[in-house]
Amino acid sequence: MALKNLEDGRAIQGLLAAKTVRSAVILGMGYIALEMCEALRARGLAVDLIKPGPVFLPWLHPDLAAVVKQELEANQAGVHLGRQLQRIESTEKKELRVLSDGPVLKCELALVATGVTPNSRLAERAGLQLGPQKSSHVDKTLLTSCPDIYAAGDCADAVHVVTGRDVWIPLALRANRAGWAVADNVTGRPVELPGVAGTAVFKVFDLQVARTGLNVAEAQEAGFDAVETVIQSRSRAHAHPGASTIHVQMVADRRTGKLMGAQMVGREGVAHRINAPAVALHAGMTVADFIQCDLAYAPPFSPVWDPLLTAANQLIKAL
Amino acid sequence: MALKNLEDGRAIQGLLAAKTVRSAVILGMGYIALEMCEALRARGLAVDLIKPGPVFLPWLHPDLAAVVKQELEANQAGVHLGRQLQRIESTEKKELRVLSDGPVLKCELALVATGVTPNSRLAERAGLQLGPQKSSHVDKTLLTSCPDIYAAGDCADAVHVVTGRDVWIPLALRANRAGWAVADNVTGRPVELPGVAGTAVFKVFDLQVARTGLNVAEAQEAGFDAVETVIQSRSRAHAHPGASTIHVQMVADRRTGKLMGAQMVGREGVAHRINAPAVALHAGMTVADFIQCDLAYAPPFSPVWDPLLTAANQLIKAL
Repeated sequence: MALKNLEDGRAIQGLLAAKTVRSAVILGMGYIALEMCEALRARGLAVDLIKPGPVFLPWLHPDLAAVVKQELEANQAGVHLGRQLQRIESTEKKELRVLSDGPVLKCELALVATGVTPNSRLAERAGLQLGPQKSSHVDKTLLTSCPDIYAAGDCADAVHVVTGRDVWIPLALRANRAGWAVADNVTGRPVELPGVAGTAVFKVFDLQVARTGLNVAEAQEAGFDAVETVIQSRSRAHAHPGASTIHVQMVADRRTGKLMGAQMVGREGVAHRINAPAVALHAGMTVADFIQCDLAYAPPFSPVWDPLLTAANQLIKAL
Repeated sequence: MALKNLEDGRAIQGLLAAKTVRSAVILGMGYIALEMCEALRARGLAVDLIKPGPVFLPWLHPDLAAVVKQELEANQAGVHLGRQLQRIESTEKKELRVLSDGPVLKCELALVATGVTPNSRLAERAGLQLGPQKSSHVDKTLLTSCPDIYAAGDCADAVHVVTGRDVWIPLALRANRAGWAVADNVTGRPVELPGVAGTAVFKVFDLQVARTGLNVAEAQEAGFDAVETVIQSRSRAHAHPGASTIHVQMVADRRTGKLMGAQMVGREGVAHRINAPAVALHAGMTVADFIQCDLAYAPPFSPVWDPLLTAANQLIKAL
C-alpha cells in the first residue's frame, strides 16, 4: 500500500482493525517510514524496513544516524540497508513476500513510503519554468514564470535562506505559509516570503530527531568551506535526575564564520531546541553571534550551557 | 531557614529526612520559592506561600500568571498574596507560627525565599561605580570602573540587548559566561559580551514557565511604544493525542516593529521554545522577520504554525 494521503491512512487503519495483520514490511526509511514503523510496532506488529541505499538517514551525521538506528533495533524493528528490491509476491494465505537480494521478508502488509516527487505535470505541460526535482519554480511572491499563475504547496520550490538557491523541501509550514501568501498577493496585499531553512523534526519511538539548515555535504555543494562539530551533552543539569544524552551537530562556513546548520538527536528537549539555530539562520548569524545568545536554563530542562551553546563553543574553535 | 547555597539545601534535606516536618511555609513567590513548593509537595509536606505584594508573578502577563496560580492551587499549595508579614514565633512543640495580617500559618519549616541583592559591599567600599540594584557596574569586557578590577557573577550588571541599558539579572548562564570572559580578558584574549536578553525558565509542578526580553511595563519604562498580544495554542497538532494548551504573550515596539519579548506557559514544549525569540532578540529581528522563520513542525511537537508564529501573526496585526 502507498502512504500519501488521508484515505491511505484510513485504509491502513481498517486493515489493522481486522487484526489479521501481524507483520509489516516498510519500503523506505525516510521519516514517514520511521513514523509508521513506530506506529505499527505500538500496535504489536513485527516490522521490517528495507531500502536499496546503503546509508541509514544519509542527510544525518553518521554518529547521530547510528543513535536512531539503535533505537529502531532496540524496538525490534528489522533494518535492511543496501538491499535491491525485486518484487512483492502474494501467497495463497494472504501473505506477502518482499523479495530482494537479501532475506525474503514475509508480511501481511507492505507499505511503500519511498518519498514523493512534485506533481508538476500541469506546470510542465503549460511550459512553466521548473525548479529543483521538477518542482514548479516560483519567485518570492509565489509567482511562477507566467505572470498570471501562482504556485503554493509541496509542488513548488522555495529559496533556501542559507544558500540563496532554489530548493524543493516539501514541508507543511512552508506549504501553508505559501498558500496564505498567494491569497494575500492575489487579493492585493503584496507579500514576499524570504524562504526556508529546511527545519524539520520527527519522533521515532522515544527519540526526537531534528535538523535545520545545511549539513556538511550540502554546504560544500553550495560552495561553502564547511566545518562541522559533533558533541554530546545532557538534556538536564547534571544533578537533575532523568537526564539523557543529547547529540548535537553544527556546521559553519570557515570564510564568513556564519552558522550553516544544526542537527540534534535525543530523548527530550530536541524538537523545540532546533528552532533557536533556525532563527539564527534566518538572521544570518555567525557562530560567534550565536554563542552569545541568552538561552534559557533551569535544571530540569538544560545544563547551564545549553547543548547548542556547547556545540557552538566547540565549532568556533574549529573555524 | 534561608535558601541561598548548597549548605542551605543540605540543611533542608537533613531536616526533611528526619520526617518530623510535615508542613512548610515559604516566604516569597519567586521562581525559587515555586520550585521549593513543588519539591516539598512532592515529599508530601503541606505548603503555604505568603508574600506582601498583591500580585502573583507580577512580571508575567496576568492571564499567564493565573494559569500558574491555578497549578499551585490544584496541587494544594496555599497562596497568600498581599499579606504583611509580622514575625515567626516558635512554640514548645517545635512548631512555627508565621504571623501576618492574614491567617496564622503553622508549620515545622519556614523557608525564606525572598530574593537576593548583589553582594557589592566590597565594590562600594572600594569606590567602584555601581549599577542597578547596587550591582558592580561592568563594561562589555567585564571591567569595573577601576581598570585593574573585573567583576563577574551575580554581583555584576550587564547590558540588556533589547534596551541597551544596564540591568541586573542574576542568572546562571550570564554568571558563568562572564567568568569565562574575565579569564579570557586577563590572560590576553580580548572578549566582549554583548549582553543578556533576560531569558529565564522554571518548572512548577507540571507547568513550564518561560520568558525572554521585556514585558510591556519594562518596554514602556525603557521608552518603547509597547504593543502586546496574548494567544492560546496547542502543544501538538490537533489530531495528535495528549496535546495541552500553550499560552504565549509577545511584545513589540510599534515604532520600529521590533520584537521586544515573549512569555510562555504550558505543560510541554515551553522551556526550549523560548530560545527562538531569545535568538531573535539578539538578532534585533522585527516581528515581520520572526513570522518568516522556518520553525520545526511534526504532529507530536507542534501545530503546523508554531504557537510562537501564531502569536507573532496576531501581534503584527496590532502594530
